[in-house]
Amino acid sequence: MDIATIIGIVMGIGLVAGAIMMKESITAFIDPASAAVVAGGTAAAALVSFPLSNVIKILAVVRKAFFARPVNPVNHVTTLVRLAEVARRDGILSLESHLSEGDYDPFLVQGLRMAIDGQDPAVIELALEQEVETITDRHANGRALFEGIAKFAPAFGMIGTLIGLVIMLKNMDDPDNLGPAMAIALITTFYGSLIANLFAMPIADKLALRSSQEVAAKLLIIRGVMSIQAGDNPRIVQQKLLAFLDNKQRQQLENAAA
Amino acid sequence: MDIATIIGIVMGIGLVAGAIMMKESITAFIDPASAAVVAGGTAAAALVSFPLSNVIKILAVVRKAFFARPVNPVNHVTTLVRLAEVARRDGILSLESHLSEGDYDPFLVQGLRMAIDGQDPAVIELALEQEVETITDRHANGRALFEGIAKFAPAFGMIGTLIGLVIMLKNMDDPDNLGPAMAIALITTFYGSLIANLFAMPIADKLALRSSQEVAAKLLIIRGVMSIQAGDNPRIVQQKLLAFLDNKQRQQLENAAA
Amino acid sequence: MDIATIIGIVMGIGLVAGAIMMKESITAFIDPASAAVVAGGTAAAALVSFPLSNVIKILAVVRKAFFARPVNPVNHVTTLVRLAEVARRDGILSLESHLSEGDYDPFLVQGLRMAIDGQDPAVIELALEQEVETITDRHANGRALFEGIAKFAPAFGMIGTLIGLVIMLKNMDDPDNLGPAMAIALITTFYGSLIANLFAMPIADKLALRSSQEVAAKLLIIRGVMSIQAGDNPRIVQQKLLAFLDNKQRQQLENAAA
Amino acid sequence: MDIATIIGIVMGIGLVAGAIMMKESITAFIDPASAAVVAGGTAAAALVSFPLSNVIKILAVVRKAFFARPVNPVNHVTTLVRLAEVARRDGILSLESHLSEGDYDPFLVQGLRMAIDGQDPAVIELALEQEVETITDRHANGRALFEGIAKFAPAFGMIGTLIGLVIMLKNMDDPDNLGPAMAIALITTFYGSLIANLFAMPIADKLALRSSQEVAAKLLIIRGVMSIQAGDNPRIVQQKLLAFLDNKQRQQLENAAA
Amino acid sequence: MDIATIIGIVMGIGLVAGAIMMKESITAFIDPASAAVVAGGTAAAALVSFPLSNVIKILAVVRKAFFARPVNPVNHVTTLVRLAEVARRDGILSLESHLSEGDYDPFLVQGLRMAIDGQDPAVIELALEQEVETITDRHANGRALFEGIAKFAPAFGMIGTLIGLVIMLKNMDDPDNLGPAMAIALITTFYGSLIANLFAMPIADKLALRSSQEVAAKLLIIRGVMSIQAGDNPRIVQQKLLAFLDNKQRQQLENAAA
Repeated sequence: MDIATIIGIVMGIGLVAGAIMMKESITAFIDPASAAVVAGGTAAAALVSFPLSNVIKILAVVRKAFFARPVNPVNHVTTLVRLAEVARRDGILSLESHLSEGDYDPFLVQGLRMAIDGQDPAVIELALEQEVETITDRHANGRALFEGIAKFAPAFGMIGTLIGLVIMLKNMDDPDNLGPAMAIALITTFYGSLIANLFAMPIADKLALRSSQEVAAKLLIIRGVMSIQAGDNPRIVQQKLLAFLDNKQRQQLENAAA
Repeated sequence: MDIATIIGIVMGIGLVAGAIMMKESITAFIDPASAAVVAGGTAAAALVSFPLSNVIKILAVVRKAFFARPVNPVNHVTTLVRLAEVARRDGILSLESHLSEGDYDPFLVQGLRMAIDGQDPAVIELALEQEVETITDRHANGRALFEGIAKFAPAFGMIGTLIGLVIMLKNMDDPDNLGPAMAIALITTFYGSLIANLFAMPIADKLALRSSQEVAAKLLIIRGVMSIQAGDNPRIVQQKLLAFLDNKQRQQLENAAA
Repeated sequence: MDIATIIGIVMGIGLVAGAIMMKESITAFIDPASAAVVAGGTAAAALVSFPLSNVIKILAVVRKAFFARPVNPVNHVTTLVRLAEVARRDGILSLESHLSEGDYDPFLVQGLRMAIDGQDPAVIELALEQEVETITDRHANGRALFEGIAKFAPAFGMIGTLIGLVIMLKNMDDPDNLGPAMAIALITTFYGSLIANLFAMPIADKLALRSSQEVAAKLLIIRGVMSIQAGDNPRIVQQKLLAFLDNKQRQQLENAAA
Repeated sequence: MDIATIIGIVMGIGLVAGAIMMKESITAFIDPASAAVVAGGTAAAALVSFPLSNVIKILAVVRKAFFARPVNPVNHVTTLVRLAEVARRDGILSLESHLSEGDYDPFLVQGLRMAIDGQDPAVIELALEQEVETITDRHANGRALFEGIAKFAPAFGMIGTLIGLVIMLKNMDDPDNLGPAMAIALITTFYGSLIANLFAMPIADKLALRSSQEVAAKLLIIRGVMSIQAGDNPRIVQQKLLAFLDNKQRQQLENAAA
Repeated sequence: MDIATIIGIVMGIGLVAGAIMMKESITAFIDPASAAVVAGGTAAAALVSFPLSNVIKILAVVRKAFFARPVNPVNHVTTLVRLAEVARRDGILSLESHLSEGDYDPFLVQGLRMAIDGQDPAVIELALEQEVETITDRHANGRALFEGIAKFAPAFGMIGTLIGLVIMLKNMDDPDNLGPAMAIALITTFYGSLIANLFAMPIADKLALRSSQEVAAKLLIIRGVMSIQAGDNPRIVQQKLLAFLDNKQRQQLENAAA
């Protein structure tokens, strides 16, 4: 998992724990039954929402989204321009040997292989765009799991608090016990809110960001592959791909070329 | 219904019941009048939202979505590639006998029949895409029913609690009764929240997931049928369909071919 | 209005009234001033949102959506196939006499009249699609009115409760009156919630469902008209329209043909 | 401003004031400091959201949307059909003198002038559609201002209540003062809710309705101009434009023609 | 930062502080531990949502969006018309020297350079539109950061209040301390609401407005560049661009021409 995620979660838990410990023992906020209602209820709702096989597949997608270092799009541009030079000089068939030797992005390899096979450009573009859509769907499923948790955890937090309140209200004979009973009732809401806002929702947001970055990179590669397939001059290939880069990345590209 | 749904709901109810029973008799949370307000009010609102005939049709769609085991898209690919081989070898008309013998997906059969009939590719594609849209609409209606329940159950839970609070506040003469009266008032909110978060919303989410999977499978079949209709080489058919598979499914396809 | 709507609303009110009367006189929940704040405030907000002339037009659309029995799309298909047979046999001009005699859907008549007039297919399709858009806009306005009520009724319910609470808090000298005063304050929230969840929101949902059904029927008719205009074989016309039917409706169509 | 808006707001304020005065002096609900927090805080947030120059421009758009009486689309149709007759009879160049004499919609004039200039139809259509998009953007900005107020007013209402509650809780020595202090704390929530639900949200909704009506009228004009430019028969022009009218408007058109 | 933003935030803080100081010392609302929970928790959630490198890049985009004075689209039109005159008179190649001398918008320069290079119009348009999409994505990321803060700050405000409430309820022995303890508990909700509604949400709204303005300007430039590339008459170029201007801006353009 990327370090920012770990730092963020540890920092959030640390802050909350610190704020508690300034005035009270942390044990006042640890209640296994409350944790069971919130975590278990959320897990149960997630189990209804997502078939088990999907959860496993989704977690694999999520893990990959977290661990895979996002490739700088500048690298894709330089790679594509270099391959365009080879294709221009030695013919597109000569790319075959380059692709099998180098360590290229599988999506790029797949697109260029179709081009080398002499397939119709419209077919290549359609297949690559369809694949981007398949990937987007998978990412959306991953996000849906965490969005589901962000939705169900506070709901079961509230359900837990309702349970606590009803029990407390049924037993109001001992007024001394009212405060502590209500304190425990509120702990499930606290858990649910923390799970939603420190884990589930931020992770869903990060998956959305990563997904949009990966899709942008894939669209860049499609544009590059189509340009190489069309036999474009490497300078034109680069110019077509510049539109995917921001100013800083264009600067990097110029520095790399220099 | 798929097992995960049953396990999830049973587990959720079990957890909630367990949390209650640790401190209180479960009967404290069973109140038929409260259940009538929440379930009845939700049913009444659903009846206004959806004409009865639609509810019956919707439930059939939902039941099908739950019981039908989702077909692995890999199987669709192998089937389509095999049919492409037949069409390539013996002509597209020879598919007719295969289709009437084998146990094929009805949507696939329908598309290929139109191709065998020699209809215009654009007409075939339009008809199949229109059917996907009709299916998507039906799924959306099924989802809308459960989303409606997820919306109305907490609302009638709150309405029940308001009724309980107003009655309690009108009769504050006996302070000893305040706690238990408020406890009962809160039970409708508890019911509404549980119905929404353990049944209705997760089932709506699962229907969304199933719908997107079924649509993806249908789009795969459309692409395959159009490719067979165009007389594509089976290798090309497979390549066009690969874009719908993730890496693990591609692996399965390779293993199946080996 | 369709019966389900009336049954649903009556059933909802009955349940709520029953739940109240089990413990308290129903008069405790009837407060004209509260009703005036909620209903009047909601009406005032709706008046700002929608010009009067629009409200009248919208209500006509809504009434029509409720009273008009939705036509079974199977009937549209059989009608279109029958007209296609006539057009194929006697020429498209021969449809004119059929249209003026039979009791046909006005939208269908309008489309076929344009075809009989010999207008360009693209012009016919554009005009019919534009009309579907105009209808969709009108339905959306009708829905917007009920969605507005569903939004403003709970808001004015809360405003009424705030008024009641402020007055109660200003006059805390007589503690005996606190409970009843707060009970009355809560009644506006109760009214607002009931208006939103038993009337406005379910009706908005039903309008959405009806609108999508009517649009689907119109799209079916467009496809059929364009197919007749193109001189398609009746069998092809039917095949093109099948995509708009679900399995049960296809069964009905086969039974009708038999 | 259209009368319904004024009536609605006056009626809403009257109802709320009446409900208050039935039980309490209206002065109990007037608190300048509370008003300053809610109105000032909302204004401050709006100032951060919208640059001053935009607010001024937006208010002009809004004022225009309110004061301009919406033109009956039937009038646009009769005008366009009449101009189509002239163009058909005397040539499109002859429209020039009509346009400079009559009192025509500026958008219609602009479109016909481009047609008279002999510009390419695709260029005319693109320019007119772009203008519709520019108008839609401006309307969306106007709506965004009122949606912002509808969002920020309740938020600053709650912030004001929090301030009041914190001050009250810090000074609990005098229990007699608790009620009135909390009453004042609640007044900001009351103000925020009233601003949002009686002014800002309904006005945003009305702007949305007006915008959709204006856009529909502009699209009707575009269709008409393109039809005149193409030299269509006036009867065809009318038939193409009928799709933008509902049944009642078509009746009006027939009556006008009779 | 533009002045309205600073004025708005200062004015909002001033109003809130003023409302507090009318009745209580401002120190009652300053609590470092509460600030740490809200600001720290929000920062932690943001850190999980957005990788650090993205936050830095996003802040650069945001800073630019705030500081860059939005260019009046009228200036773009006059510049493009002037360049169209040069291109018409001296040929498109003659623009090269103008572009290298003058102080032109980089996006405009890039588009015209591609036109001067003699690239295919479709390629130029695609590249420029792709760049607009890249810019829109970057703006959306900037907005997402502030929308995230607007979402997490109130959530951690509520988490802080829950912590305070639980601690207070656990220690109800000293009733004199109840009020002040609850006051402090509420301060985190106050902080969270203020951060969301005075900073984060209004800034996100302003970024949305700025983004839409910048995109509209870029689309205007694309239309102008394509028109110059096509060798359009300067009068036609201007007419095509008028659609992007509102009435006041058209007036400015006429005045500038006069």
